[in-house]
Amino acid sequence: MNSKVAIIMGSDSDLPVMKEAAEILDEFAVEYELTVVSAHRTPERLYNYAENAEKNNFDVIIAGAGGAAHLPGMTAAVTDLPVIGVPVKTSKLNGLDSLYSIVQMPPGVPVATVAINGAKNAALLAVQILARKDPELREKQKEYREKMKNKVLATASSLEELGYKEYFERSEKFAD
Amino acid sequence: MNSKVAIIMGSDSDLPVMKEAAEILDEFAVEYELTVVSAHRTPERLYNYAENAEKNNFDVIIAGAGGAAHLPGMTAAVTDLPVIGVPVKTSKLNGLDSLYSIVQMPPGVPVATVAINGAKNAALLAVQILARKDPELREKQKEYREKMKNKVLATASSLEELGYKEYFERSEKFAD
Amino acid sequence: MNSKVAIIMGSDSDLPVMKEAAEILDEFAVEYELTVVSAHRTPERLYNYAENAEKNNFDVIIAGAGGAAHLPGMTAAVTDLPVIGVPVKTSKLNGLDSLYSIVQMPPGVPVATVAINGAKNAALLAVQILARKDPELREKQKEYREKMKNKVLATASSLEELGYKEYFERSEKFAD
Amino acid sequence: MNSKVAIIMGSDSDLPVMKEAAEILDEFAVEYELTVVSAHRTPERLYNYAENAEKNNFDVIIAGAGGAAHLPGMTAAVTDLPVIGVPVKTSKLNGLDSLYSIVQMPPGVPVATVAINGAKNAALLAVQILARKDPELREKQKEYREKMKNKVLATASSLEELGYKEYFERSEKFAD
Amino acid sequence: MNSKVAIIMGSDSDLPVMKEAAEILDEFAVEYELTVVSAHRTPERLYNYAENAEKNNFDVIIAGAGGAAHLPGMTAAVTDLPVIGVPVKTSKLNGLDSLYSIVQMPPGVPVATVAINGAKNAALLAVQILARKDPELREKQKEYREKMKNKVLATASSLEELGYKEYFERSEKFAD
Amino acid sequence: MNSKVAIIMGSDSDLPVMKEAAEILDEFAVEYELTVVSAHRTPERLYNYAENAEKNNFDVIIAGAGGAAHLPGMTAAVTDLPVIGVPVKTSKLNGLDSLYSIVQMPPGVPVATVAINGAKNAALLAVQILARKDPELREKQKEYREKMKNKVLATASSLEELGYKEYFERSEKFAD
Amino acid sequence: MNSKVAIIMGSDSDLPVMKEAAEILDEFAVEYELTVVSAHRTPERLYNYAENAEKNNFDVIIAGAGGAAHLPGMTAAVTDLPVIGVPVKTSKLNGLDSLYSIVQMPPGVPVATVAINGAKNAALLAVQILARKDPELREKQKEYREKMKNKVLATASSLEELGYKEYFERSEKFAD
Amino acid sequence: MNSKVAIIMGSDSDLPVMKEAAEILDEFAVEYELTVVSAHRTPERLYNYAENAEKNNFDVIIAGAGGAAHLPGMTAAVTDLPVIGVPVKTSKLNGLDSLYSIVQMPPGVPVATVAINGAKNAALLAVQILARKDPELREKQKEYREKMKNKVLATASSLEELGYKEYFERSEKFAD
Repeated sequence: MNSKVAIIMGSDSDLPVMKEAAEILDEFAVEYELTVVSAHRTPERLYNYAENAEKNNFDVIIAGAGGAAHLPGMTAAVTDLPVIGVPVKTSKLNGLDSLYSIVQMPPGVPVATVAINGAKNAALLAVQILARKDPELREKQKEYREKMKNKVLATASSLEELGYKEYFERSEKFAD
Repeated sequence: MNSKVAIIMGSDSDLPVMKEAAEILDEFAVEYELTVVSAHRTPERLYNYAENAEKNNFDVIIAGAGGAAHLPGMTAAVTDLPVIGVPVKTSKLNGLDSLYSIVQMPPGVPVATVAINGAKNAALLAVQILARKDPELREKQKEYREKMKNKVLATASSLEELGYKEYFERSEKFAD
Repeated sequence: MNSKVAIIMGSDSDLPVMKEAAEILDEFAVEYELTVVSAHRTPERLYNYAENAEKNNFDVIIAGAGGAAHLPGMTAAVTDLPVIGVPVKTSKLNGLDSLYSIVQMPPGVPVATVAINGAKNAALLAVQILARKDPELREKQKEYREKMKNKVLATASSLEELGYKEYFERSEKFAD
Repeated sequence: MNSKVAIIMGSDSDLPVMKEAAEILDEFAVEYELTVVSAHRTPERLYNYAENAEKNNFDVIIAGAGGAAHLPGMTAAVTDLPVIGVPVKTSKLNGLDSLYSIVQMPPGVPVATVAINGAKNAALLAVQILARKDPELREKQKEYREKMKNKVLATASSLEELGYKEYFERSEKFAD
Repeated sequence: MNSKVAIIMGSDSDLPVMKEAAEILDEFAVEYELTVVSAHRTPERLYNYAENAEKNNFDVIIAGAGGAAHLPGMTAAVTDLPVIGVPVKTSKLNGLDSLYSIVQMPPGVPVATVAINGAKNAALLAVQILARKDPELREKQKEYREKMKNKVLATASSLEELGYKEYFERSEKFAD
Repeated sequence: MNSKVAIIMGSDSDLPVMKEAAEILDEFAVEYELTVVSAHRTPERLYNYAENAEKNNFDVIIAGAGGAAHLPGMTAAVTDLPVIGVPVKTSKLNGLDSLYSIVQMPPGVPVATVAINGAKNAALLAVQILARKDPELREKQKEYREKMKNKVLATASSLEELGYKEYFERSEKFAD
Repeated sequence: MNSKVAIIMGSDSDLPVMKEAAEILDEFAVEYELTVVSAHRTPERLYNYAENAEKNNFDVIIAGAGGAAHLPGMTAAVTDLPVIGVPVKTSKLNGLDSLYSIVQMPPGVPVATVAINGAKNAALLAVQILARKDPELREKQKEYREKMKNKVLATASSLEELGYKEYFERSEKFAD
Repeated sequence: MNSKVAIIMGSDSDLPVMKEAAEILDEFAVEYELTVVSAHRTPERLYNYAENAEKNNFDVIIAGAGGAAHLPGMTAAVTDLPVIGVPVKTSKLNGLDSLYSIVQMPPGVPVATVAINGAKNAALLAVQILARKDPELREKQKEYREKMKNKVLATASSLEELGYKEYFERSEKFAD
């Protein structure tokens, strides 16, 4: 049966950040399930979800949370699957609270932490993990990297050709 | 039956900090149980401990933890009892990680957080809570406050009388 | 006579944050008084308010303040009632100053600190404290927790059913 | 051919931290290579090491570094293998500099970051990744988790039995 | 009658830091009183001390405190005298908590804050304030500044003459 | 001749913050001069300004600056007058850089630091200093404090009378 | 052949910040090349760019980057030219991550770091370096400094003449 | 006449850090002068030193300071020479105060900032600057880089050959 990735988050207010993980997995044609699991409001659901994740054919769990952000760490406490933690930016401490809560796990129970709001990289990390047993994914990784490189090179060419002033003026990115 | 306080901590390495809570409860003659419950290494034990705390006649839970420090928050997620969190100082981030992980709980699940390494105050807060239904404890609170005040006044008198130089030299506190 | 909760704040500019505490107490039908007490501009009023709180039938005091935020700590210095501190977010240091000023109390005088802007949790903590001597409140706690859980489960179902794309588009939450 | 893990670090002064990763891999009987690769002093070596890691049968790279800590991120820039970053504690900024440099990677190039000095968890994360294609490792994971749990339970029993005072006095851990 | 400076601190554990203020005032022959006043353990004493400070012939109050550090701010809330706050370094947050609690006072009630552990500068600031109405003190200020300058110039000469190697070896300061 | 206060700032972009100091001095009828002196762009002007401040009948200097914020400290290095530093909030580090640069002065050269953007308190501190030799100002201080207190009491009454809901709705402060 | 300055940045989203460097170099008539080089997406391009910079007649490299911000440090690892690093402000950690990643380089490989978003100063630093072998540039430096000083003096005069109130009202800077 | 580097520091207590700059310049046979210049205690000396630095044949100034750390920025305010700032670690804020004070300079007056206690890199940066007009220094740079690289490679070989356990035991570095 195919590998799957679970994308869970503490609240649907994390969705604007976490859906970037889903978009990457779509791009790599990796199967996934996306849902809400709250460590604090539904601790039993968290326990069951993590307990059964391996049986349910998941290979990796991506968990996003903000503030006290116990979801990734508690998931990792229950399952042997790799858990990738996404610290979601908060309006008060800018996500520093989320980052510390997720990354500073005690010896014995790791969480693979990515950047604040780094859901995209969480998905790429999931792909890297799955690719270790899936040669097809490894090919897609190469293409993705190539595309990424070419995009930078195209920007560089265009910037050098036009000069920064014209580039700046033309670019919609910098319009308000 | 009498009220009891549970004092739990993530690891016995937190004991030098957390035993100060027990010492205060001894001083107030409040019954307590002190043990180790690891959110990450024994999630099931945590779940059961918190789930049954009220049935087991506990009225307050004091939970100390360092680093990612999920113990107080996850306990609060399972029980309706007031949970007091003690952020234990860590050697890397000085306990800032513990503090943020414990205090920044999401709406719906509070943890009553005290200072970094503030186990003594955690116990005093437990006493304040129990005292709301125990007039005898309220008397002890007054005495404790009085003693605390008198100790400061005695220090002040002694310092004013001796002058700071002699006070400083005489005091064992400042000897190395 | 009935228990009461005092909700005090340093300035009426804290009201948009602190009124969430009142709303929770309304929901639990707990009696409360909400007013302004400034530690720095009305120190005598603070002293008297805290001194008489117990006589005035209060069981818990919720105190919100920002910046140097001395209100919760000074209230705790005068009364034996449990004091819950709400660090209000500031425009300069994001509420870190409020948090440190409130949580880092010295041994002997605890303040039960909640998250930055965590007035809602302050009220829930007050309910937890009052519930220790009020079986009716304990019933309400269970209902509250159940409702909270069901709301998460409903969100999860809806998200799984619709898929995140449609859920995201339909949700008013994410519209600007 | 067998999977292998590469453990690299910026300087041999990181060895006291990073050797804990090797010890865990020994415990799980996972093959590994441990060496020094400096991003700043041997950039070409870094480039070649990362470029050839997959060909050389590595499945995961663990990279530890302190301060500006570019080693994990630059390794991830060159290889498609999962890279686990260990922020090494520094004497000046306590490892905050290392943490930010390692975790805040831009979209497209993830580093799976663990706690400051978290080399042990880096190795456990590597095991989790390898276990996805190695059923034997999955068995070892279960045993490891079981042992970890039992150690906590034994501590708890001993602490409850002896009482914290006697436990504290007997424990060598707390002797100076 | 002569001006006086009050030097107060929250606990005698602040004495090693705060006595430097007394030493400077001795050097300038400014009269002072040094004692302990705890905002949290003796709030009434704080209130009375501040309330009567002006009547008791004080012109300036120097207040040192660590952690939540409410002493300077609450003193300033009660008196119209200038209050100089000394944030005392703490073992947990390095005095950042003390600094924020002291300096972030709300509009209307200033505290003149000096560096963490900056008791010496607190006294010099008190001298600057008193000197505004005391021409003799102004002369002493000039001498103090001159001495300070000459000490730097002497160090510079000696360092340039000996060369840094010999200077370094000869200096007792750098011996362990 | 009358006392005067100098209000200086590093750039006219600090004016929206620093003009609050002038407004307070206007309210207390204290004479002042407000101008721009840049430590980094006009070091000679800074030197001359500070060197001659006492001769020019100034008694106190209020200096506001942001970022590296050397203006208050360098002014204090040249004059014996009390210098009050106002850390101006910056768009990048929120004024933490300004605060540290201003408050962490070395022994020998104090700067009386107020809160980030605390220009109003800087002026009140200047008034406190001048009041030490001006009985009329001391009367005005009492009135100011009284007015401040009464404003809080009026808010409290109005809030208690109307109830927070109506108060909140009526208040223009909370309208957007 | 003439000296040249390279201005490189990790992404074109850094252009609004980094173009200020180009504008300064235009003002000093210093030749430069501005382009995009991504440490993480085009590591080979980075390697080649830095490797050949000296041969390509560059004397100084200005490198701007945000977040993990490895571009300046990795460039410095490959070339012997002076590398000036510009930490670009990020939306999450305000540029603290960029600053730490760029400034905390290990012994042996310096990066000359300027303020967060300090591209203008990066260019001025490049001019200072080039001026050491170019007397004409030294003349331009004097003019630039003179102009800068005169602008401050003009502001001061205008502010003193108009008074701050009228100045404030007239100034477009403070209009919204 | 030969180029020279000035190494200045705020106090001789910075010497243990700053002498590493002198040692590097000795290694590169670059002439230098090392002395003490205090921004706060000898502002006139600072002014004269910076004013005359270019006339006195200096090409680069390295300035180290801790805390408020105004020395590098004020030197840069007076001279057109490149100024390299070394933030010296402080016992209270770990050198964060020094770093912010030195690096956050306003537009117009750059300071080339290196890592906390990074005096060695300050000297290497000075060499990079001087090398732009001195082909002989450029040769020495290549040798230095080569040596640095070879040292890492030797460590790597030795570590791989001995295995980390034996390497660790043999190394004096890790003995206490």
